[in-house]
Amino acid sequence: MEVLNNKTAARRWVMHQRCEQRSLGLVPTMGALHAGHISLAKRAVQRCDVTVATIFVNPTQFAPGEDLDRYPRTLENDLRLLRDAGVDAVFVPAVDEMYAEDFSTYVQPPDVALCLEGERRPDHFRGVTTVVTKLFHILPCTHAFFGHKDYQQARVLQTMNRELDFGIEIEICPTVREPDGLALSSRNRYLSDDERRRALGLHRALTVACKAYQDGQRGTKVLEQLMRAELENAGIDSVEYAVVVNSQTLQPSVHADEEAIALIAARVGSTRLIDNQKLAT
Amino acid sequence: MEVLNNKTAARRWVMHQRCEQRSLGLVPTMGALHAGHISLAKRAVQRCDVTVATIFVNPTQFAPGEDLDRYPRTLENDLRLLRDAGVDAVFVPAVDEMYAEDFSTYVQPPDVALCLEGERRPDHFRGVTTVVTKLFHILPCTHAFFGHKDYQQARVLQTMNRELDFGIEIEICPTVREPDGLALSSRNRYLSDDERRRALGLHRALTVACKAYQDGQRGTKVLEQLMRAELENAGIDSVEYAVVVNSQTLQPSVHADEEAIALIAARVGSTRLIDNQKLAT
Repeated sequence: MEVLNNKTAARRWVMHQRCEQRSLGLVPTMGALHAGHISLAKRAVQRCDVTVATIFVNPTQFAPGEDLDRYPRTLENDLRLLRDAGVDAVFVPAVDEMYAEDFSTYVQPPDVALCLEGERRPDHFRGVTTVVTKLFHILPCTHAFFGHKDYQQARVLQTMNRELDFGIEIEICPTVREPDGLALSSRNRYLSDDERRRALGLHRALTVACKAYQDGQRGTKVLEQLMRAELENAGIDSVEYAVVVNSQTLQPSVHADEEAIALIAARVGSTRLIDNQKLAT
Repeated sequence: MEVLNNKTAARRWVMHQRCEQRSLGLVPTMGALHAGHISLAKRAVQRCDVTVATIFVNPTQFAPGEDLDRYPRTLENDLRLLRDAGVDAVFVPAVDEMYAEDFSTYVQPPDVALCLEGERRPDHFRGVTTVVTKLFHILPCTHAFFGHKDYQQARVLQTMNRELDFGIEIEICPTVREPDGLALSSRNRYLSDDERRRALGLHRALTVACKAYQDGQRGTKVLEQLMRAELENAGIDSVEYAVVVNSQTLQPSVHADEEAIALIAARVGSTRLIDNQKLAT
């Protein structure tokens, strides 16, 4: 596996592959890899001729006071996991390789970024669209793979990809869960044993909403109340949102249909967790 | 010369050239071509293996009340001029090929877009960076050519290109002028005979500033006063700005040095004209 640290070498490596007519899959990550990331890498390896992963903890998507500084860095282990998954190259730039001090060009994300995460983390998606644009330029891929767990992010990037004509095929891959249902997240390692138990409330709340939908409940208000009750029951400290919305637009409607998705953001102790599930699945 | 109307065909045409290891020059225009545009096309043809021009009157860079609707459209003549210049392909998309009705992803331009034109035309550069990003994606070129006449635009695009890692070589080509000094512009055709005479004031004011600089004058205030006096003298209706700034940052300083550039925006009748000149040239 090739480890690339600078943009010029990375671009040259990728362009060589592309001009050999190979399909090229990109798997952008912030490292601290878990089985969720690895499932993305394996899917890319299966689907594309060549797979490139990236490891970069992107400062522009963290707000002041968020966990940029303590975000877990586990590079050696990450590289081993990617190699074992069959990844061909990994791009690991330093911060100053990506951002000069006077950096000021940003990709303003589409309207689907305005609600939910966008409301609570004002510049977060702007940081995501900007860094992903840069990665798409440095590593011009044919396919890119993102996780369903960060569902709004995936929709933001799909919309950006279409509207700015990147011409990349973006695949949203299923959330990987622990046996008890907890969605894998690099931030799970912040949880104490007690918090870990309470964090299960997110998955349970989603399951309750899905079950109610499958039993015929279509009122989004009712479905949301069921989720909140379950979250409270689980001892979740604070619920930022627990909503049922349209999975394309992320906009609310009175009645849930087969396009509906339930999304939750909540704090367990000081750790912010998100999870989601389509109701009709 | 290939005339391409849809994005898929255009991308395929360009990717074929790129994979043959050919350098590819891009010349984005809004049509209504004059000798200034054609000098860009000829420079691209000279410098690159293959040259693609684009003709697209981009609605997102016009504000309500600006001249989008009456902007001159001269497609047949434009195509003939490009063919004669040796251009290999031209991309001429319809508006709905470039923008869906709910379009909302924009490239927020770098700080160098904030002053001068950016102050007077609030969303103008956002429209420019967005459409040029789309064109760079649809037509992945190695080189792109822009005119010195739209100097701030060229600096905005060079900065965007560097900060978002497009990896394109951007060349700023000299302003082409009428024999009497008027900078060529698609908007010159709006001018009446009398306005055409008064419009010469822009070039005369720049010439006066250059002369004073070459005679040793370094005070930017004095240089700006000389330009304003010359513009008033020429009967220019209203001067939006007439400044001497650093040509990299476009920021003012007390003393002009060899990096200094003079820039003017003014209205002659209802027509808004811009022009500029480096003082040390």
